[in-house]
Amino acid sequence: MDAISDSPDRTMTATPHVQAGTASSLLEAYREVRAQSVALINGLSDADCTAQSMDDASPAKWHLAHTTWFFEEFVLCGAFGQSERFDPKFQYLFNSYYDAVGARHARPERGLLTRPTLGTILDYRANVDTRMADVLSDIGWGTELYALIELGLHHEQQHQELLLTDLLHLFSRNPIKSSYSVGYEKSTSSTAPLTWSDFDNPGIVQIGHDGDGFAFDCEGPRHEVLLRSFALANRAVTNGEWLQFIDAGGYQTPTYWLSDGWACAQERGWFAPLYWEKSDDGWSTMTLQGWQPVDPSAPVCHVSHYEANAFASWATDHLEGCEGARLPLESEWEYAAQHQPVSGNLIGSEALRPLKQSGDTLSDLFGDVWEWTASAFKPYPGFRPAKGAVGEYNGKFMSGQSVLRGGSCVTPEGHIRATYRNFFHPDKRWQFSGLRLARDL
Amino acid sequence: MDAISDSPDRTMTATPHVQAGTASSLLEAYREVRAQSVALINGLSDADCTAQSMDDASPAKWHLAHTTWFFEEFVLCGAFGQSERFDPKFQYLFNSYYDAVGARHARPERGLLTRPTLGTILDYRANVDTRMADVLSDIGWGTELYALIELGLHHEQQHQELLLTDLLHLFSRNPIKSSYSVGYEKSTSSTAPLTWSDFDNPGIVQIGHDGDGFAFDCEGPRHEVLLRSFALANRAVTNGEWLQFIDAGGYQTPTYWLSDGWACAQERGWFAPLYWEKSDDGWSTMTLQGWQPVDPSAPVCHVSHYEANAFASWATDHLEGCEGARLPLESEWEYAAQHQPVSGNLIGSEALRPLKQSGDTLSDLFGDVWEWTASAFKPYPGFRPAKGAVGEYNGKFMSGQSVLRGGSCVTPEGHIRATYRNFFHPDKRWQFSGLRLARDL
Amino acid sequence: MDAISDSPDRTMTATPHVQAGTASSLLEAYREVRAQSVALINGLSDADCTAQSMDDASPAKWHLAHTTWFFEEFVLCGAFGQSERFDPKFQYLFNSYYDAVGARHARPERGLLTRPTLGTILDYRANVDTRMADVLSDIGWGTELYALIELGLHHEQQHQELLLTDLLHLFSRNPIKSSYSVGYEKSTSSTAPLTWSDFDNPGIVQIGHDGDGFAFDCEGPRHEVLLRSFALANRAVTNGEWLQFIDAGGYQTPTYWLSDGWACAQERGWFAPLYWEKSDDGWSTMTLQGWQPVDPSAPVCHVSHYEANAFASWATDHLEGCEGARLPLESEWEYAAQHQPVSGNLIGSEALRPLKQSGDTLSDLFGDVWEWTASAFKPYPGFRPAKGAVGEYNGKFMSGQSVLRGGSCVTPEGHIRATYRNFFHPDKRWQFSGLRLARDL
Amino acid sequence: MDAISDSPDRTMTATPHVQAGTASSLLEAYREVRAQSVALINGLSDADCTAQSMDDASPAKWHLAHTTWFFEEFVLCGAFGQSERFDPKFQYLFNSYYDAVGARHARPERGLLTRPTLGTILDYRANVDTRMADVLSDIGWGTELYALIELGLHHEQQHQELLLTDLLHLFSRNPIKSSYSVGYEKSTSSTAPLTWSDFDNPGIVQIGHDGDGFAFDCEGPRHEVLLRSFALANRAVTNGEWLQFIDAGGYQTPTYWLSDGWACAQERGWFAPLYWEKSDDGWSTMTLQGWQPVDPSAPVCHVSHYEANAFASWATDHLEGCEGARLPLESEWEYAAQHQPVSGNLIGSEALRPLKQSGDTLSDLFGDVWEWTASAFKPYPGFRPAKGAVGEYNGKFMSGQSVLRGGSCVTPEGHIRATYRNFFHPDKRWQFSGLRLARDL
Repeated sequence: MDAISDSPDRTMTATPHVQAGTASSLLEAYREVRAQSVALINGLSDADCTAQSMDDASPAKWHLAHTTWFFEEFVLCGAFGQSERFDPKFQYLFNSYYDAVGARHARPERGLLTRPTLGTILDYRANVDTRMADVLSDIGWGTELYALIELGLHHEQQHQELLLTDLLHLFSRNPIKSSYSVGYEKSTSSTAPLTWSDFDNPGIVQIGHDGDGFAFDCEGPRHEVLLRSFALANRAVTNGEWLQFIDAGGYQTPTYWLSDGWACAQERGWFAPLYWEKSDDGWSTMTLQGWQPVDPSAPVCHVSHYEANAFASWATDHLEGCEGARLPLESEWEYAAQHQPVSGNLIGSEALRPLKQSGDTLSDLFGDVWEWTASAFKPYPGFRPAKGAVGEYNGKFMSGQSVLRGGSCVTPEGHIRATYRNFFHPDKRWQFSGLRLARDL
Repeated sequence: MDAISDSPDRTMTATPHVQAGTASSLLEAYREVRAQSVALINGLSDADCTAQSMDDASPAKWHLAHTTWFFEEFVLCGAFGQSERFDPKFQYLFNSYYDAVGARHARPERGLLTRPTLGTILDYRANVDTRMADVLSDIGWGTELYALIELGLHHEQQHQELLLTDLLHLFSRNPIKSSYSVGYEKSTSSTAPLTWSDFDNPGIVQIGHDGDGFAFDCEGPRHEVLLRSFALANRAVTNGEWLQFIDAGGYQTPTYWLSDGWACAQERGWFAPLYWEKSDDGWSTMTLQGWQPVDPSAPVCHVSHYEANAFASWATDHLEGCEGARLPLESEWEYAAQHQPVSGNLIGSEALRPLKQSGDTLSDLFGDVWEWTASAFKPYPGFRPAKGAVGEYNGKFMSGQSVLRGGSCVTPEGHIRATYRNFFHPDKRWQFSGLRLARDL
Repeated sequence: MDAISDSPDRTMTATPHVQAGTASSLLEAYREVRAQSVALINGLSDADCTAQSMDDASPAKWHLAHTTWFFEEFVLCGAFGQSERFDPKFQYLFNSYYDAVGARHARPERGLLTRPTLGTILDYRANVDTRMADVLSDIGWGTELYALIELGLHHEQQHQELLLTDLLHLFSRNPIKSSYSVGYEKSTSSTAPLTWSDFDNPGIVQIGHDGDGFAFDCEGPRHEVLLRSFALANRAVTNGEWLQFIDAGGYQTPTYWLSDGWACAQERGWFAPLYWEKSDDGWSTMTLQGWQPVDPSAPVCHVSHYEANAFASWATDHLEGCEGARLPLESEWEYAAQHQPVSGNLIGSEALRPLKQSGDTLSDLFGDVWEWTASAFKPYPGFRPAKGAVGEYNGKFMSGQSVLRGGSCVTPEGHIRATYRNFFHPDKRWQFSGLRLARDL
Repeated sequence: MDAISDSPDRTMTATPHVQAGTASSLLEAYREVRAQSVALINGLSDADCTAQSMDDASPAKWHLAHTTWFFEEFVLCGAFGQSERFDPKFQYLFNSYYDAVGARHARPERGLLTRPTLGTILDYRANVDTRMADVLSDIGWGTELYALIELGLHHEQQHQELLLTDLLHLFSRNPIKSSYSVGYEKSTSSTAPLTWSDFDNPGIVQIGHDGDGFAFDCEGPRHEVLLRSFALANRAVTNGEWLQFIDAGGYQTPTYWLSDGWACAQERGWFAPLYWEKSDDGWSTMTLQGWQPVDPSAPVCHVSHYEANAFASWATDHLEGCEGARLPLESEWEYAAQHQPVSGNLIGSEALRPLKQSGDTLSDLFGDVWEWTASAFKPYPGFRPAKGAVGEYNGKFMSGQSVLRGGSCVTPEGHIRATYRNFFHPDKRWQFSGLRLARDL
């Protein structure tokens, strides 16, 4: 989510989704999500949480503060009219919204905020959590306020993923090769041969969120699309297959690439996925557990849309059994996913089912790696940006970005679903992004 | 067509289209198109035809040479096996294809080619025309070769538009304000109030080229799309309406803009369409007839996709009768156009009907200005790039670009049709590009 | 010293300078200088010491580590042949020398080194200090090794100034406006009117270091120069005078500026010295004590050579009593300083006299602000770069930089002398740099 | 002269210099110089004269117009008060002075001025020449006006050299490898071994222009400098010696280079002098006669100050007989030149002696290649910029540039002298610039 760290922009919900409507359940969800954010920086120093390794990334401390600011700004001060803030300066410092309006230079300078310290930010979190606990009992299920808080929790989960993604980038730039190492990023190895699931003549089908359970605004309205016959690969493209692409000169052959992609790859000197390095011992890659040998059976990760597209072009002629390979449309992906048992509602015990599928035709559709689709991130028919601060910019990212589906190994549990639309510019590759092939029938 | 000057890339045809299949007709078409290119530089100097005013543009001389190279390379040397060339160096100089592969720095340096001179390029054209006349009588209707030559003529027509577009940019940068002045760019003024044509519940409709008559490859395959009810404005947005947008602070209000568009507009200091200047006498704009007062009744021209999108966002709240305004989908545009009497086949006398519609509900759908759509330039279902040199890169521009429809005042007669897909990056505005509003019903 | 943080490059000494030649004195000096470095970060967090606010600056942690690396690399491992290092990775991490040779990208990424932590760096310092104490007793006065260690101490003092200079920049970029505040930067206010000291017909004079006491290599050889009559202002240009320059449109008038300076000022939008901000309450400026009102009586600070030059051009016509004003040559400055009682030897109690002059005709020649001269930083006649690692690059900065003289309020006591040549590119202004006017007689 | 095409800036004269003071002599000089400019473009097309191959260069047409503008602006309109201009727009178009003040973007866009045409510019020249002839008879020797016109002629001669220099660059970028070919650039081959002329203990010597004959303002005032013993090489460094430097890895060894020079060389990928290319047939280089094999006996040309400096550093250790090699100071160079028979006064028959020396100890001190010195371009003692339009910016280039001495094969006859100070930034290499070694005795 290219600019998610800048705003709660794309985050809107029409209906609240905690089943019982009990305040205690919302409070429980709040506590769980909030605690998880802090757990992510366990073992990290103030400096680790302050550094910003590139313009696209934000410091961990900033993620922790910005998600807290959401609740202070919109719930405590906005909805409940509290006039006292933990620190009035934080309204400016951690408000990504005003950045977009007038102070665009600030983003690349987030790494200079050595003050407030990590300790102060944790105090800020504790302070807001206490104040939130006070008000949460007053919030009835199904109210607008209930929805707003739920939105805040999903917003925070997005930032949990970004926090890990950005930390990985930071650690990757440190020549002493230290690692984050909390046991994350357990992407599944698969030795399954690549096979195809056919979806014959789907015709007019429904995609998009139906309003049942939480969703971001861009997931709706639910609407009809016309689908032609297609097939989807049973699993994501693996590192082993990507090594074949590298060895076949994929990064040196312009005919596989989109024009913009080729220009980008040349300018930046791409020769492999981000974080890959080759030594006499073969390929290794930076992970949240540090530098590891590239596992040929694991899904390829940290590739851009441009690379994914070039791979598919190459595969159609050169990868066995892949004639006609291309990236799937997001509608194809969602339709396929809807024919699988899927879970993913954040709140409520039933919803907290494991995301990983086993024994499915389509394995690991959710989790492991975000899967680039062929679809531009565009509004669904009938989509209109919401009015007001929270939704002010809902549609503003709907240009020049490509949709990813399915979530990754660092997507929080309960945060993913079949209708979820992640999106990034096609040159970005620091996300946990890979691909799954599709083709016409 | 963002990169058209670099290649015949997107130019493919499945079926030849001269009705009678007489060689004389193809020869006549060849002569007509070729003569038209040279007519465009009437009155221009060698220097005028050599200068390159920006990286996106090419010198007029280069357009004249590159379109000639197409016939020498693919027809005379390729198909007929001629080994003697007018000048062997031209194979490299005017072959945009090799640029793309290995010599990408060449494009911004086209303006340095003071040699060969314009005179030499005109000799080159005459030489190739003579050699082409010799072989054209041997080409039977419906053959692959016939199709290739027809493709070459459409390719040349694309460059005719680009030649004028690029010259306008060049002349605009000259402070002495000289003009091109051949009498082009006769865009229609309209005092018609903005009204809407409703298209009620179209359902599953066909779009894309059906193979009857010439089309570029990206216009097919013809396929079904599902259309919801929509309305299309009876005319393009006018300069007068754009002045309202300017006066309302449209260029200073980020909430109207896509995120990437706002960043672009700020970085480049946009405050009005390209070529607009404000003085004490009001707004004026550079045209092929030189600097002219902005005509409030004429369609707005030289706006980017970003600006078009911002205008629509503003219009939905602020322009009378435009609630819900947005850019049309290209499928909506094409469907609407198919319900109008349309002409546009290049070759054959019946085909050379005037493009301008009169008395239509939707006026000036063709001509005047290219109309930005909301659609990303993506392959139609089932599209596969052709094999071989001519089609090698067919799909490579299908990323990051937006579709425009309808043609402009500098599009050659007979070169436009309802299925025609033009495309440029959303920040480009030196094309003759405007917009027509759409909305949901 | 533009690139001092990259190397011990310019640091060479011909003769050791502790008077008695007792090891205990060198040890004492070592302890004093080393302790002073650590004292500078008192009260700062790990994050404060890790952040890098621009490419020109280095993190405090890096300064602390790099100066320690000097002793481990050149003394302990180099001279004493110790094979065990505190951490073998530090040889690469804090060795600016290899950066210069092959890894130039590293410098802007120093702020990403969240590991090793500040605590580890302090352990590193303690470890090296212990090992150094072990060997210091073996070093005889006047030996090459003695000179090397003395060089290391002067090198560390240079970095002490840079550490403060870089921290000021970091804190200046933080919108919460916290401050460093250890009581530094006590620049003298002066209400003295500007007067001139005349130096009549000096003729052939000697400048450069004479080998008595420590000096960097670029301060020698001592040599003759031919000086014409000149006058030097009794004090540095003040903020009050600079405000006159601003109010007179100095930043908007190209005729005062060098051509390169004007281009630079326009491109970067300069309107006042670095750190100056104007509000309804008047001008304020960032200092090590935080934001403070601009004191009209204090020397102007944080101006580039370009600005200093423009000021002098303006002053010659517009500042009372300053007709013919220009920047002094470094030879004029040094000659004038040699006619003042000056101290400045690092080691030995007598040497630690206060630097500030009182009752001098030329006040504050040392301390307060570095004074830009008109002289390019070029080798003195007969200067040849030394051989070997320490001196390998001695002359490599002698291009495109301007000489500054006199030291600033953050220059360590005992580190300055009349022959000292500081140098930076003419566009740099984050140093504590001001100016003193000169003129012909 | 880095920015000479932007202004008559550095051009000032205190005393007029036509001996007899007859108007007919000045007219003759005028006609000769003016005719020579036009002769330089013999055989070139309008396009050749319009193209601009990089920001540093100007089109030939611009040089022809700007030098004409000088006479119209300063003499005809300025001094004689003529109110009618050939074309009022030319006052803006060819007035480099106003560019510097407010319209800095114009310079890189000079190549877009396809109008006015070359024909119009030649008409402009003829028109001004006629008007000048009318007034020249009224101008008495020794008057200010006489001096102004003389200045205009020297200004035009500077542009004659730049015109050829810029054309060479333009032609070098054309892959068809056409050439200018008017018979210029006849640099002398020398098979003389490198020897040294010793200048023993010169002491206090005079350098700078003494007011006898024409000089630019920066050549004065004449003043004393103190020179130490030095030696100067008998000839310029040759291509053969440069090839040794290349073969020895000179371009890959940072220790030979100034820090800024190394960064520049890396960033721009330098591996040899500008225009050099290596093929299976060995090295060739672009010349005004087209591509030619590199002649090992000819002086190396088209090297930057950075390269010249690196060469000297390398030579001191690796080139036989060159221990201690360095670039000469400009004062050393001028002192040495003053001990040679030198000519170079523009006007008057005696002055038009051949510039090339034969049988001198120091051969080719004048002509062949400009010789980089070690000296920064700084004002001589007592230099003050002149007042008024012509002299307004006299000193503004005295920052960041290095002095070159001696003239080149494209310097007009009669335009060079021992006191002449040419100057360019140390990274520039499209001038005809080489070097001659010096060393201490």
